[in-house]
Amino acid sequence: MSPTPPPDVLISEVGPRDGLQSVARTMATADKIRWLDALHAASLREIEVGSFVPASLLPQLADTAALVRHALTLPGLTVMALVPNLRGAKAAIEAGVHKLTIPVSASAAHSLANVRKTREDMVAEVRSIVALRNDIAPNVKIEAGLSTAFGCTIQGEVPEDEVVWLATQVVEAGVDESGLSDTTGMANPAQVRRLFNKVRAAIGDKTGAAHMHNTRGLGLANCLAAYDVGVRTFDASLGGLGGCPYAPGASGNVVTEDLVFMFEAMGVRTGVDIAKLLAAREPLKAGLPGEPVYGMTPEAGLPKGFAQGAAHD
Amino acid sequence: MSPTPPPDVLISEVGPRDGLQSVARTMATADKIRWLDALHAASLREIEVGSFVPASLLPQLADTAALVRHALTLPGLTVMALVPNLRGAKAAIEAGVHKLTIPVSASAAHSLANVRKTREDMVAEVRSIVALRNDIAPNVKIEAGLSTAFGCTIQGEVPEDEVVWLATQVVEAGVDESGLSDTTGMANPAQVRRLFNKVRAAIGDKTGAAHMHNTRGLGLANCLAAYDVGVRTFDASLGGLGGCPYAPGASGNVVTEDLVFMFEAMGVRTGVDIAKLLAAREPLKAGLPGEPVYGMTPEAGLPKGFAQGAAHD
Repeated sequence: MSPTPPPDVLISEVGPRDGLQSVARTMATADKIRWLDALHAASLREIEVGSFVPASLLPQLADTAALVRHALTLPGLTVMALVPNLRGAKAAIEAGVHKLTIPVSASAAHSLANVRKTREDMVAEVRSIVALRNDIAPNVKIEAGLSTAFGCTIQGEVPEDEVVWLATQVVEAGVDESGLSDTTGMANPAQVRRLFNKVRAAIGDKTGAAHMHNTRGLGLANCLAAYDVGVRTFDASLGGLGGCPYAPGASGNVVTEDLVFMFEAMGVRTGVDIAKLLAAREPLKAGLPGEPVYGMTPEAGLPKGFAQGAAHD
Repeated sequence: MSPTPPPDVLISEVGPRDGLQSVARTMATADKIRWLDALHAASLREIEVGSFVPASLLPQLADTAALVRHALTLPGLTVMALVPNLRGAKAAIEAGVHKLTIPVSASAAHSLANVRKTREDMVAEVRSIVALRNDIAPNVKIEAGLSTAFGCTIQGEVPEDEVVWLATQVVEAGVDESGLSDTTGMANPAQVRRLFNKVRAAIGDKTGAAHMHNTRGLGLANCLAAYDVGVRTFDASLGGLGGCPYAPGASGNVVTEDLVFMFEAMGVRTGVDIAKLLAAREPLKAGLPGEPVYGMTPEAGLPKGFAQGAAHD
C-alpha cells in the first residue's frame, strides 16, 4: 500500500467547545467521549475539546478536564482548549492540553462588553499566559483567535488597521499563531482575502486559522476566499453545532461535513474520512436528542461517482 | 442626484420558472403577478417568468403567456422564458419574450433520459430555434443553458471536453450565449473555475450565466468561483424556491437574497435593492402559504452598519 500523502489543509473541529457552549442542555460526559472518539475515528487531527472557564459561567463545559484526559489517549490528536485568561491557561496546562486558544476581541467595544478588558489589557493577559507556558510547559502551543475581526454587532465596522495592529501585538506577546474569527457572521469574501493578506504581510507564517460562521450563508465562500490567499487551517463544527443558522443572532458555525466535502471535491486533501465524518453525527444526535443538526452534504448525500482524493485506511 | 453607476453583475431571477415548477401546488396567476411586480420593484432586471411546455407536463406554469404579457409592461425588464423545443420557442416568441433559454444536457445519459434526444439532436433543435428567431423575431436573444455541466446523477462524471464541445456546438448553431448549470449540485469551486475558463477559451464572450445549486451548501462558493474567472451573470431563485435544500435530491437553487448580499457586501454592485428584495418574499409567501422559503440573510437580517454599495432611489 502506498503511503497516504499529507493533507493540504487542517480542519480544526470546534464543535465540542464552540458548539456545545451554545446549546442550552448539557451533554453527558460519556456521550461527549463517544462523540470525540467518532471525530477522531474520522481522522480529524485537531479538536477543541472544551473551555477552561468557571463552571458557573458555562456548566455545559464543566467536564473539560476529564475530556482532555480522554482525548490525550487518542493517537495523533492535537488536544486543544479555549482559555479566556491566565487562570484558565493554568488549568488547561495542568490538564495536559497540547494547544491553547485565547479569544481576543478585535472590536474595542466587544472587548469591553465581553471580558470587561481593553484590548491592551487582553494583550497583557496573553503575555502572562505565554510567560506561564514558557515557564512550565514550553511545548504547549498558543493561538490567539481575533474575534469580531470582520465586524461587530456592537460597534459595526472594525477598522482593518486595528485588526492588523492587534495581530502584531499578540505575536509580539509570544503566541505561535493568530487566527481571524468572523464571530458575528459579517465577513464577505473580498474582505476575507484583503484582511488575511494584510495580516500575513504583518505577521507572516504566524497567520493562523480562519474561523468562519455561516450566519448569512457565506461560510463556505469565505473559507474558499481564505484558502485562495494561503490560509490552511479552518475551524468548523460538526453538524454546524453552535447555533441554528436560521435563527436571528445565531452563531452558525461552518458545517464540518460541508467544508470537508468542498475541499475534497476540489482535490484539496483534508485528511478527513468523509464517510466516518458523516457517521460521527450519530453520537452527537444520540447525546443531544432533539437538538438541530445541520449540514447540506449529509442530507443530500455524496454525489454519484464521488471519490475522496486521499486514500484512507 | 448623481447617476447610479451601472451594476457589475446581472442577477437573473429564475424563481418564477425554476422555483414554481418544483412546487407541487400551482400559484394563482394574480399572485404570480404580485410577486413579479415585487421582484421588479427590487430592481431585478432579468426574470425567467415561466416555461413554454405543454400544460399537461407542468400545470404550475400553464399561465406563462399571461405572465409574459404582464411582465412586458414592467419598465426595463428583460422578460425571459424557458423553451424545450421549437414548438415552445414559437409560442414564446409569439407571446413577446425578449429572451429564450434552452436547456441542453451536457450529459449524454441525462439528455436521453430527460428529452429522449441525443445531444446532437438537441443541437439540431437549437439550430431550428435560431432559424425561427432569425426569421420572425431577430431581436430576441437566445441562451443555451448547459445542464448537468458539472456532473450527472445518472452517469456521474461529465467529461469537461464534452461540455466545451457542446458549448461550441450551440454557439455554432447561433445562440447568443451559453451558460453552465449545476443541475445536480455536484459542482465545486475548482471545477467551476476550470470549466468556465475552458469554455471561455472556446467561445469567448458568448460565455453566459452560472446557474448554481446549493444542494450540498456550495452554491455561493461556486458563484464566487465563477465571479473570480469573469462570469458576470448569475441565476438565483428568491427564497431558494426550487426544492428544499435539506431534502435528498432537491434542486436547491442559490438563494437570490444571500447571493445579492454576498456581492453587495464585497462591493460588487448588483443593481438590486436588498431591502425591496427582502420585501419580495412576502408576496411569494402569500401566494404559496406553507411552502418553505429559504435564505440565511433574511433570517439573520442585514449586519449592523451595512450600507449597500450602489445608491437606489
